[in-house]
Parts: sequence; structure tokens; C-alpha cells
Amino acid sequence: MFREVCMRCGKEREGLEVRCKRCGGPFKVEVEFPFSRELRSNFPYIKEWITLGEFNTPTIRWGDIALKMDFLNPTGSYKDRGSVTLISYLKQKGVKSISEDSSGNAGASIAAYGAAAGIEVNIYVPKNARAGKLKQIESYGANVVRVEGTREDVARAAENSGHYYASHVLQPQFRDGIRSLAYEIARDFSPVKTVYLPTSAGTLLLGVYEGFRHMVESGAMREVPRLVAVQTEQVMPLCAKVKGLSYSPPKEVTSLADALVSTNPFLLREMEEVVRNYGDCVVVTEDEIASAWKELARRGILVEYSSATTLAAYMKDRGKDSVLVLTGSGLKVL
Amino acid sequence: MFREVCMRCGKEREGLEVRCKRCGGPFKVEVEFPFSRELRSNFPYIKEWITLGEFNTPTIRWGDIALKMDFLNPTGSYKDRGSVTLISYLKQKGVKSISEDSSGNAGASIAAYGAAAGIEVNIYVPKNARAGKLKQIESYGANVVRVEGTREDVARAAENSGHYYASHVLQPQFRDGIRSLAYEIARDFSPVKTVYLPTSAGTLLLGVYEGFRHMVESGAMREVPRLVAVQTEQVMPLCAKVKGLSYSPPKEVTSLADALVSTNPFLLREMEEVVRNYGDCVVVTEDEIASAWKELARRGILVEYSSATTLAAYMKDRGKDSVLVLTGSGLKVL
Repeated sequence: MFREVCMRCGKEREGLEVRCKRCGGPFKVEVEFPFSRELRSNFPYIKEWITLGEFNTPTIRWGDIALKMDFLNPTGSYKDRGSVTLISYLKQKGVKSISEDSSGNAGASIAAYGAAAGIEVNIYVPKNARAGKLKQIESYGANVVRVEGTREDVARAAENSGHYYASHVLQPQFRDGIRSLAYEIARDFSPVKTVYLPTSAGTLLLGVYEGFRHMVESGAMREVPRLVAVQTEQVMPLCAKVKGLSYSPPKEVTSLADALVSTNPFLLREMEEVVRNYGDCVVVTEDEIASAWKELARRGILVEYSSATTLAAYMKDRGKDSVLVLTGSGLKVL
Repeated sequence: MFREVCMRCGKEREGLEVRCKRCGGPFKVEVEFPFSRELRSNFPYIKEWITLGEFNTPTIRWGDIALKMDFLNPTGSYKDRGSVTLISYLKQKGVKSISEDSSGNAGASIAAYGAAAGIEVNIYVPKNARAGKLKQIESYGANVVRVEGTREDVARAAENSGHYYASHVLQPQFRDGIRSLAYEIARDFSPVKTVYLPTSAGTLLLGVYEGFRHMVESGAMREVPRLVAVQTEQVMPLCAKVKGLSYSPPKEVTSLADALVSTNPFLLREMEEVVRNYGDCVVVTEDEIASAWKELARRGILVEYSSATTLAAYMKDRGKDSVLVLTGSGLKVL
């Protein structure tokens, strides 16, 4: 029905190991069943959903384009699509305490679903993470652990914490939950030809790609839409690679788009393959982000700046029959 | 198909007047068509919806009770149900600029829908309104006007501003939009016997009542569920009246439940009638609110304190087959 395999060497996952034992690569869920219009049936490895009301967010139209209001998921970001599948799966496996490294939307989402599941959650954050961002995580009752050093040091501390490392980047059941977003886009906006996705660690791009691919392979859709990864001038490792641009990552990310922080993403080569085969990468400037954010707000839609990058990219790229994925709530940044 | 009549003397509304010309009473929409399972068909006076993706919020189960996650509406509160019908209606009527008095959820919601409609929005707030609360309103591009004096002075300034007074309390198309919530509750949780509603100005209680009554009169439901209005010790004019409790309103509301502020609601007698015939009123303490809020958060649900009053009331009242309406997002109060 489904298998978990290393995305790099193809080795099967044996249990709950976070990285491939042979090559250290990331795992993915191999989807080997036909697409179902019953959304949750497409995740057969979940027996009991630890739900907070995720999925089925609204789509609204602005003339030719559609806005997917995915920030209306329960914790205010699309990450809930990944947290619900990951946490439900880990609960089934008997996991009692987890760690994760994120001071933003992923941390809040995993803290909430962990709380709902009765799993102890430990969120590792950089020493200088802003207190405001941590309040949501702490409200859900998670332990917040501040770590000195680089972003990589924080990840290492989470991975070696002694708790099960529920990384939203590495865990296949997190990325796999994002497939649900592709199913909803295809269902609510047809035909969809272009999808704009803010792109940082790659879970959104790769998860959405897998969903569309599943539909195509099941005959439920003609072809995978053009997937446009959107990055900022400050953090554009994927665009730099695909477009052959020169790029040196900043010491500190100060972009308005403060959810797009993966200067050196672990899944870079997997993202690159998707973008080369099915899409494109668009870089947006700070001014473009600010002006897109304002345009959305002035039309009644309050998102975080990272989500506004999709509108900024659309204004330059003007893809046909486009869907902009609005990933995070603006209420978090007021 | 539908009429607008004074709730006190029955006189028909002539145009867009805010209060009855004969008695000064508030208007309501008289629903004179059968209930439709097609949600938006129950608002036949809306020809074109100015939508931001409101309605159809999730319901989740906690054992015997259901939680209606209505804070997942587009601006983070149930008020969007009223704003969408009011603003769509005013847009049809050619209204170009409006005023409203609210420094909270209603102000933000009307600002967002006004922005989506291209209507100029002027929100009147008390001089001492917290800057944080106003940021959301200002993000949508609304003008915020600070007024010295009492809450009543603020309302008077909005009513006499020269802009059309789009009061969420007085406008029948605002209250009428809340019917949608009753339809969703009946659809998603059956049988529903008890509904807990945070109660301040009365739009939620009266709107939900009208929705259930419509279903009962159309034969789509056996009887109106028991409607439990929840108020705080500080602001309990309805409970005091219904239960015969002694009560003197505070000079300043300092309750955690800072959306429940109507110490002297204009619609008090209408609320009283509903509660006497179909429900009850429950008063909750600050400690009960704090502990209910924490219980929700520790199970992954972050709401504003005013919403947590419903769980606090349920813990004392223990109604059968209960739905708790969670009205406002906790992201606004971080």
C-alpha cells in the first residue's frame, strides 16, 4: 500500500530512523495506491487522525487568479497539513516525547498537534529567537530550549536531544501530509496551470509536487502544473542553483519574509530536480514583498510577509491560471 | 422573499435607516423562505458575495462535546459571518464610505470586508484602545479615529460621522449573517442539544437563534437547541436580568475576556426573550476563564480568552450533546 524509501539511494526505511542508514539521505513516502477524492483516504498509514480541523481551507478568486487561504489552518499556517500526518503517525508508533528545531510556524504547528496527541514536545530555537514568536509555541505547553550557535547547531541539539527527532524537514510523514494541498488546489480551481509556492526548506514544494504527481499517475489530472518556487534575494539557494546566479548566503536573515530562512537546505537537490522538470524559480526583492503584502492587506487579506512573496512573484511572472498559496497568518506578525 | 422590520414595533424599514423611524428600535431581517442545504442560498438578498473565504469552519470532537473552530474565519473571528452579508449588501446599495465603532474583532472584520469591497472604512475607537488591537484594523487600510469619553461617546461619534453607520450591533444584515453558524452546527454535529455562546452585544446569540428557528420552521430540525449565553462576572447584564442577580457594571472592563465588554447592550430585551424561552445564562469567573483557556491551549487550540468562557461554562453546566463556539483567534492576543 505504501513504502518509505530513501530519496537518494532507494533503501527502505527499517523503523523510525530519521536518516537512511546506508547513505544518510532523507526518506519519502512512496505512494502506491490510486488517488481518492476522499481527501483523508490518501493517507492510508493514518489509522486515527489527531485532528485540530486542518485541511479544506478556502480558495478565493481575484479575477483570473486564485488565492489559497492556507493560513486559515488551525495554528495559522500550512504546516498543520504536515503536522497532522506526522504526529498521528508517531502517536500510533507509541512515541512519547519529541524534539524539533524551529522558532516559527513549524515549531508552533508541531507543538499544537503534539499537545493534542498527548506527546511531550521540545522545541529547540536559536538563542536570539524573538520572544513574540515563541509565545505561541509556549502556549501549547511545549518546552522551548534556547541554543547558542548557528542554525545548524540548533538542529544538531534537537537531533541529539534524547527525544525522538520529529524534524519537519526530514520526517517523511510531515512532507507527505502536504500532498493534501495539491488535491485541494486541483479540486477547487480547475484547470490549474501554475502554482506559486514560497520556498525555504522545501517541504511545501516537494509535498505539493508529490500530490500532483499522484493525481497524474492515477489519471485524475492531465499533467503536473508549473510549480514556481519563490525565494527572496537574501535566501535564494534554489534559484541561484537553477538559474546559475551568483549567491552568498547572509550571516543573518533580515528579510521581511522571515519564514524563508533556509540558506543551505538539506533537500536542495530534490527541490532542484522538481523545479528543473516541472517549474521555475523566481526571486523577489524586499520592495516587491512589501508592496505585495500591502496589496493583499488593502484587499482584506492579512498574511505574513513570506506568503506575500507569491503575489510579488506572480506580478513579474504572470503565469496562466495561477494559484498563489498563502502559507502563514498575518495575525502572527502584528 | 424577505422583509426588514423593527424588532420592537414591527414597522418596515424604508431604506438604509439604522434605527426605526417610529420607535428608534433595531431592525431584523424576517426570513420568509424555506431553509436550503446550500448555505449561501439562505441569504437571497446577496446577489454578489464580497468573499474572503468565510463560512464552513471546522468542528472537532472532544469525546461527547464538539468545538466549533469559528476563529478560523478569514480575519480570525466569527464576525466575518456578519461582515460578509452586511458589506456585500451595502456594496449592492451603492454605499461608498462607512463608519463603525469597535476596537476589536468587529472593527477588524468590517475593515477587511470593506477593503475587499472597495468601500472606505472609518473605525471609531476609545482614546485608550490598545495600539496592538488597532494594528490589524489599520493593516486593512481603514482610518482609525480615536474618541475621548465613554464607550457610548465613541458610538455616537461613529453614528454622527457623516459616513454611513455600519454598526455591527444595529445593522440587520450583520446579525443576519450569523444564521450561517447555526446551519453549520446543525449540519456537522447531530443531534445538537446545547450550544454555548460568549455573549456581549448579542449579535451571536440572536443570529444563531434565528438560524435554528429558521431550520425548525422549515422542518429541517426538530427543535431549537438549548442556547446558553455565557457572560463574565464583570460584564453580566443579561445573566443578572434573567437570573435576578444584583449587578453593577464596572467603570472599566479588566476581564481576561476582553471581547465581552457590552455592559449595557442595546439588544438586551431581545436577548432576554431568547434566553428565557430557549436557553440559559451562565456566569464564569476570571479563574475559570484562565483555566479553561489553558486547557484548550494544552490540547492544541489557541483562542482568545473570551472564547474560553464557553468551556468554563460547560464545565459547570454540563449540557447534553454540547457545541462550544470558539469565536476568536488566540493569535491576536499573543
